[in-house]
Amino acid sequence: MQIKTAEARSVIDRTLGNLVWGWKKLSMITDDKILILRPDLPKADIKPLYRQMQKCVDARGGEVSARTHAAVLGQAYLDLNDQGRHQFMRLIVDRFGTDEAALRESMTAYLEQGDRRDQRMLDRVRELLTPPWTTLFTQFNALPSGVKFLVDMRSDLIRFSREDGELEVLDRDLQRLLVSWFDIGFLDLRRITWDEPASLLEKLIAYEAVHEVQSWEDLKHRLNTDRCCYAFFHPRMPDEPLIFVQVALVNGISESIQDLLDDKAPVEDPHTVDTAVFYSITNAQHGLRGISLGDFLIKRVANDLERQYPNLKNYVTLSPAPGFRDFIECGLDLDELPPLSPSEKSEVETLLETRVVEQQEILETSKTVKPLLMRLCAHYLASGGNGTGPADPVANFHLSNGARIEQINWLGDQSIRGMNRSFGLMVNYRYRLSDIEKNHEAYALDGRITCSSRVKSLLRMNGQS
Amino acid sequence: MQIKTAEARSVIDRTLGNLVWGWKKLSMITDDKILILRPDLPKADIKPLYRQMQKCVDARGGEVSARTHAAVLGQAYLDLNDQGRHQFMRLIVDRFGTDEAALRESMTAYLEQGDRRDQRMLDRVRELLTPPWTTLFTQFNALPSGVKFLVDMRSDLIRFSREDGELEVLDRDLQRLLVSWFDIGFLDLRRITWDEPASLLEKLIAYEAVHEVQSWEDLKHRLNTDRCCYAFFHPRMPDEPLIFVQVALVNGISESIQDLLDDKAPVEDPHTVDTAVFYSITNAQHGLRGISLGDFLIKRVANDLERQYPNLKNYVTLSPAPGFRDFIECGLDLDELPPLSPSEKSEVETLLETRVVEQQEILETSKTVKPLLMRLCAHYLASGGNGTGPADPVANFHLSNGARIEQINWLGDQSIRGMNRSFGLMVNYRYRLSDIEKNHEAYALDGRITCSSRVKSLLRMNGQS
Amino acid sequence: MQIKTAEARSVIDRTLGNLVWGWKKLSMITDDKILILRPDLPKADIKPLYRQMQKCVDARGGEVSARTHAAVLGQAYLDLNDQGRHQFMRLIVDRFGTDEAALRESMTAYLEQGDRRDQRMLDRVRELLTPPWTTLFTQFNALPSGVKFLVDMRSDLIRFSREDGELEVLDRDLQRLLVSWFDIGFLDLRRITWDEPASLLEKLIAYEAVHEVQSWEDLKHRLNTDRCCYAFFHPRMPDEPLIFVQVALVNGISESIQDLLDDKAPVEDPHTVDTAVFYSITNAQHGLRGISLGDFLIKRVANDLERQYPNLKNYVTLSPAPGFRDFIECGLDLDELPPLSPSEKSEVETLLETRVVEQQEILETSKTVKPLLMRLCAHYLASGGNGTGPADPVANFHLSNGARIEQINWLGDQSIRGMNRSFGLMVNYRYRLSDIEKNHEAYALDGRITCSSRVKSLLRMNGQS
Amino acid sequence: MQIKTAEARSVIDRTLGNLVWGWKKLSMITDDKILILRPDLPKADIKPLYRQMQKCVDARGGEVSARTHAAVLGQAYLDLNDQGRHQFMRLIVDRFGTDEAALRESMTAYLEQGDRRDQRMLDRVRELLTPPWTTLFTQFNALPSGVKFLVDMRSDLIRFSREDGELEVLDRDLQRLLVSWFDIGFLDLRRITWDEPASLLEKLIAYEAVHEVQSWEDLKHRLNTDRCCYAFFHPRMPDEPLIFVQVALVNGISESIQDLLDDKAPVEDPHTVDTAVFYSITNAQHGLRGISLGDFLIKRVANDLERQYPNLKNYVTLSPAPGFRDFIECGLDLDELPPLSPSEKSEVETLLETRVVEQQEILETSKTVKPLLMRLCAHYLASGGNGTGPADPVANFHLSNGARIEQINWLGDQSIRGMNRSFGLMVNYRYRLSDIEKNHEAYALDGRITCSSRVKSLLRMNGQS
Repeated sequence: MQIKTAEARSVIDRTLGNLVWGWKKLSMITDDKILILRPDLPKADIKPLYRQMQKCVDARGGEVSARTHAAVLGQAYLDLNDQGRHQFMRLIVDRFGTDEAALRESMTAYLEQGDRRDQRMLDRVRELLTPPWTTLFTQFNALPSGVKFLVDMRSDLIRFSREDGELEVLDRDLQRLLVSWFDIGFLDLRRITWDEPASLLEKLIAYEAVHEVQSWEDLKHRLNTDRCCYAFFHPRMPDEPLIFVQVALVNGISESIQDLLDDKAPVEDPHTVDTAVFYSITNAQHGLRGISLGDFLIKRVANDLERQYPNLKNYVTLSPAPGFRDFIECGLDLDELPPLSPSEKSEVETLLETRVVEQQEILETSKTVKPLLMRLCAHYLASGGNGTGPADPVANFHLSNGARIEQINWLGDQSIRGMNRSFGLMVNYRYRLSDIEKNHEAYALDGRITCSSRVKSLLRMNGQS
Repeated sequence: MQIKTAEARSVIDRTLGNLVWGWKKLSMITDDKILILRPDLPKADIKPLYRQMQKCVDARGGEVSARTHAAVLGQAYLDLNDQGRHQFMRLIVDRFGTDEAALRESMTAYLEQGDRRDQRMLDRVRELLTPPWTTLFTQFNALPSGVKFLVDMRSDLIRFSREDGELEVLDRDLQRLLVSWFDIGFLDLRRITWDEPASLLEKLIAYEAVHEVQSWEDLKHRLNTDRCCYAFFHPRMPDEPLIFVQVALVNGISESIQDLLDDKAPVEDPHTVDTAVFYSITNAQHGLRGISLGDFLIKRVANDLERQYPNLKNYVTLSPAPGFRDFIECGLDLDELPPLSPSEKSEVETLLETRVVEQQEILETSKTVKPLLMRLCAHYLASGGNGTGPADPVANFHLSNGARIEQINWLGDQSIRGMNRSFGLMVNYRYRLSDIEKNHEAYALDGRITCSSRVKSLLRMNGQS
Repeated sequence: MQIKTAEARSVIDRTLGNLVWGWKKLSMITDDKILILRPDLPKADIKPLYRQMQKCVDARGGEVSARTHAAVLGQAYLDLNDQGRHQFMRLIVDRFGTDEAALRESMTAYLEQGDRRDQRMLDRVRELLTPPWTTLFTQFNALPSGVKFLVDMRSDLIRFSREDGELEVLDRDLQRLLVSWFDIGFLDLRRITWDEPASLLEKLIAYEAVHEVQSWEDLKHRLNTDRCCYAFFHPRMPDEPLIFVQVALVNGISESIQDLLDDKAPVEDPHTVDTAVFYSITNAQHGLRGISLGDFLIKRVANDLERQYPNLKNYVTLSPAPGFRDFIECGLDLDELPPLSPSEKSEVETLLETRVVEQQEILETSKTVKPLLMRLCAHYLASGGNGTGPADPVANFHLSNGARIEQINWLGDQSIRGMNRSFGLMVNYRYRLSDIEKNHEAYALDGRITCSSRVKSLLRMNGQS
Repeated sequence: MQIKTAEARSVIDRTLGNLVWGWKKLSMITDDKILILRPDLPKADIKPLYRQMQKCVDARGGEVSARTHAAVLGQAYLDLNDQGRHQFMRLIVDRFGTDEAALRESMTAYLEQGDRRDQRMLDRVRELLTPPWTTLFTQFNALPSGVKFLVDMRSDLIRFSREDGELEVLDRDLQRLLVSWFDIGFLDLRRITWDEPASLLEKLIAYEAVHEVQSWEDLKHRLNTDRCCYAFFHPRMPDEPLIFVQVALVNGISESIQDLLDDKAPVEDPHTVDTAVFYSITNAQHGLRGISLGDFLIKRVANDLERQYPNLKNYVTLSPAPGFRDFIECGLDLDELPPLSPSEKSEVETLLETRVVEQQEILETSKTVKPLLMRLCAHYLASGGNGTGPADPVANFHLSNGARIEQINWLGDQSIRGMNRSFGLMVNYRYRLSDIEKNHEAYALDGRITCSSRVKSLLRMNGQS
């Protein structure tokens, strides 16, 4: 999800001249208007870059000109390599951050004034808390594809922050800006069909993170009449899905992802089936990390499906349990698993030592392994009763959305990955309209997890074994 | 620009159910979900309203539900009358503002920590500076037409603030939100032609503030091939112009607004003329007060015209000088006018005492009045050399955009209003690409005003008289 | 509906160069490519015009070039005045008609060949029956706005044919072409709302033939939520309605057009009312005379309304009876009216002699005039039992569509025009789904007219008086 | 290109009810409205089918009802298998053809009337020459996707006609109808990019007839910035390309199709190159056989490219010579080749006897084979001087469009197919604006073929060998 320099540049080059009045001509008059930097941004190039940034922050020549200066800056950024971009960010964080002295002064002044609320003084504090770099970020918004530029820039920033902790403060600020701009109220929910542009569909193929799309034919199958795909879009990034979900319309709650993805299976009439299975949710933009849209997506899609297909009765997911194997492995080491009989313990140990390709046989033949793993998985998902929620991130996501744990599926995902992560187990979470708020409150306030009776009996089995 | 209750409600009623999952059904289950308030919001209704607001702010039932609760709140707001709405705002400002004790505490903690930058502490201050009401405002964004709802709500707020100063802090906060959401990077510039929907065009007729549109025929004339109109739109308010400008494409700089608006005048070929005259700019949304888009509009339109009609050489305005009469009247009282000969003084006094309908004759016959008023007007516009800028708001707007004062036009606006405000004088401001930044800087930093040589000689004449 | 030369030319001039490859450049090379004719087409200009036509008909330079030559021809046509255009048509009819000798020969050959069907021979006859001018007409289709050009050309042709009978054969041929191109399968039905382009809506105002649109406000009223307007469009004339109908959604069958058009009347909720009243149908293109779209329009609109507003039960018209006064006047002269008592006869005579402005009083005060006129009107509409159908063209139209005569309304149209044509009487025809085919067959095959029982009793009253 | 029954039916089933008023309901009342036929249309089903056809032709129940009856008929057709459809056509041709007796009578009447032109009599002949089945065909146009239905029906008809000559007359009539409806004036030229719907692009992959599209990646390469694809569309078949052309924008005239299709080749900047190579034209609809759109397509595309890329100087094709091998083989047998020396004759014979996989070696190593085949190919393409044109259909197509033979390319197509058809030779035809009309006339009227001097010298070489 890095910015692809060549492509992005060509868009910018083509439209920059038209972006703000006279940029092209200005650049003919005063030739310092174009900023030519070496890709890795050596020291000698820092100074002209700094001057250009300063010009933006000061809005020299007026607001309209400042946007043009920012466009030049953005264009320069696209030509940098990773090292250069990192330096670019360091320059911002070092030179255009909060004026701390002034900030402290303003706070002191506010604190000293006694009880009287003086809003002007607070406004001053607030203003100083918005560092000059926020101005810079905002000005990039007027670039052609400016919103996408910022999202991609944040994607860079997240990468750099991993090694350079001082950039985190910049990242948090950019995130705050994007949270405001990607408010759910601005987004479009769109159903993606086979009639969408190939240039959009190839992005789905590239981005799909949960169950890889194998080919265009596979994609076509996933957009068939008994399948559907929905995505959120931002009006300024109309060709870029932000997050998308894939749904299968079937009879009965699906228990196996391989069955769902089998393009030989007969096509159902979506107007007669009773169940919508959400089998994949993908965040498509790294640069939007921490901006949560999944809850909205699931519920709006459910709402849309409900109106289109009034026969639907069940809204469930078919989800992985990505940390289940780790849970067992660590639990065994730390002796934190639910009580196991010696034979159970040994069975688990054997399993952990077996290579994935051979596990399958054990799973299919052993009579004892299924109840054992099912029970452990129930614990894994549902016993985070200490208020911190379950270890499983997927469980945590759906539970805080107000879903309940409906069912654990034996051999639900027989892919290598599925085996590796959770011995092939998959989970259905269920969204039931009338319970969502109640479940959410129970989970959010008290850490209580709602389960179906089937899962509850798995949990109860525990003591007996 | 008030929210028209009936219309807005019907839109909301129709779409609310689809807005977020299951609202309609939820409301069937738990009947406290619909908030029924009396129009003037008597005391007894405050409590349920407060509870609903609290539910939103706490995001009870999850984020998605919170948006539904906010929609119910928004719906209730639309049914209130002015008194009720004012109470609604008071409730917000009284109960959902900044937690000052916590804020002070967080600041003190930050100040005490010594030199070490601790961003988490700053984040805490920043968070406390964003009062709960901001959450409320943001949640309204998910209403159908939510952006328009907020803009109109701010329009209400501005009205109420005039009498109730405590609402100002709320207004400033809402303005900050709108500044971010109406960033120029999000707006669409669109040329408005006679092919636009009648439902949009009737808004132009209603909103046009500078030179009233007389009829649909008048509007058609203003959208003819040698005229044009451009507006900015927000992607979430596609049917509502935010600000629009009207331009005439003519030969030579226009000196009279009546000539421009005369629909009997022959139509020019826009591809051969040399001058674009911006003769009217209207801010269409009261709720966007203080969010300045005019500078961007003028320059982007100029850019667009330049590409379409390469023969254009001059970009000028034909603008009123709305405070000129007041300037003379007060100046005379306070003896602050430029030096006048006794006869001049008497001429001015006569003029001020004459009724508008009789002024015209003086203006057309007296040989001395023209040079006198032209000279005074030059002073009015260009002599704000004390750094505060000229008294005239229109001059101030164009000068800070980087334009220069090009020409003062005798009998440029012979309407009653034009006579009343400025004895019929009108002004051309000129936007010259190569000078814009220089002019802006001179004006912004040093208060220096740029004039054409013609206006300069008017200013020089002063000493001689 | 004449071709507006200036407008049409400018469109053509602008796009002609792009129409077919290289026209612009060709014209620079061989200067005979542009045809300059004097507006009234004097004799001297006939020859070059003839040569150009011949070039088209022969498709000289290939099919693509021929279309360019035809475009030049079309452009020339637009610059002619009525006299010139008439000559243009005469030239076509005189020189590019059927080759009769060859035709006769081909028929003779066919007839002589005995019983054996030889399709090639028939094809030859068919080919000769398609005169060269058909080639010309078809080639005009590649003009920008070519379809509209032909429709407008036919409008000219219809006018000229009134005085010049020899053009009729040309008109019949052009009509045949347009019948094929305006087949209902190609047309789009579109609901026209207040959100349509002003440039389209002003055409509704201009074209509306039945009840004149008074102003933009009147139009807005007619497009309100309890009113609707539908039109057919051709994909190649997307800005030109072909035929449009106006419908009011009301409770109960409307009896007065003035009540319907009253913009002070309260707006109904279209989802609760029971009756759709078709109160105006207008053929918007003179050049499509004889191509009947009205029947399709009414039934498709009814179908569309039915799906949108499931509460609708009645589909009726509110129609004029345009020939009623003439029917009485002539009937009296020729003694062909149904039997009248002497007092009735005298009342009718008085009425005929009274000026319209004074008729109203008689109609409102006399007790005998109402039953009399109602009875006569029932006869006027329903007694064309001799198989030729009623004299009234409106009745004939609706009856052949399968509607029945539902009701005659006293003082249904109190406008001057309504008084003049039918003493203010209006008629409801009713479209009842289950009877349409039956009614149509009865009327089409046997000339039987279907009436409601109320109208039937009016007819029966006859003998008694 | 057969009608895919299942898909087509579902579209029809879904929309038929809405097609014309009340069909759905009518069918509930009178149950004979739905026509259920067995797939192979046994004799017993002929009678109800005939009755339904008769109902359409007679327009029983009115025009609107007739369209509904036709829709029922169309729906029934889609459910038939090939045998059934053939019977369906036979029924039409046997029972709804020309009334020959009446036709003869009308002709006789016309011939006997002497010299006086009586248009009414001719109209009568013309009417009788339009058999009732034309009514049927036209009525199918109101089916949802009616135009596509007819095009596909003609595709069936063409297949059946091969074995059943009596259907030809029906086919000719349907062709006449389609010629009128697919007049170039109605078609849209659209550039196809990677942003088009996947559902459209997969049709390009399926239809491409000249150089098979290997994969979605291959297609993406063919839609890259230095490639382009254009197609004609009918407004009533917006998802179906009628004919499409693929163009490469390159420097210099391309000599090898494998080089052009190589997706490893560097991408050119289309704004700087000098040559547009039309390397593939595909007629996408079998049912439009005999309706020639290729000439228009090439010239309009050239026109469009010229405006977009003003640097283009050459417009050429890279075309196969599909009949070249046959020409040599037959020519050798019949001794009709240009004079060959004995060694040449033997070389040719060897070549003809060699398997394709081994030919390549001969072609690449023999020094004599290249001049020999090039010379023969020049004769093959350019020596059809007897006025019948060259044997090569591709040459004939481009020559009648006004192109000239520019160049013959050695090893231009090394695919099996290319080897098989023409020993790997390919041909460039050149479209030069200023010569098109002249070339066309020379070829159309006198059979003169225009060649470049290089091709001319190949022809001259002949005598010397």
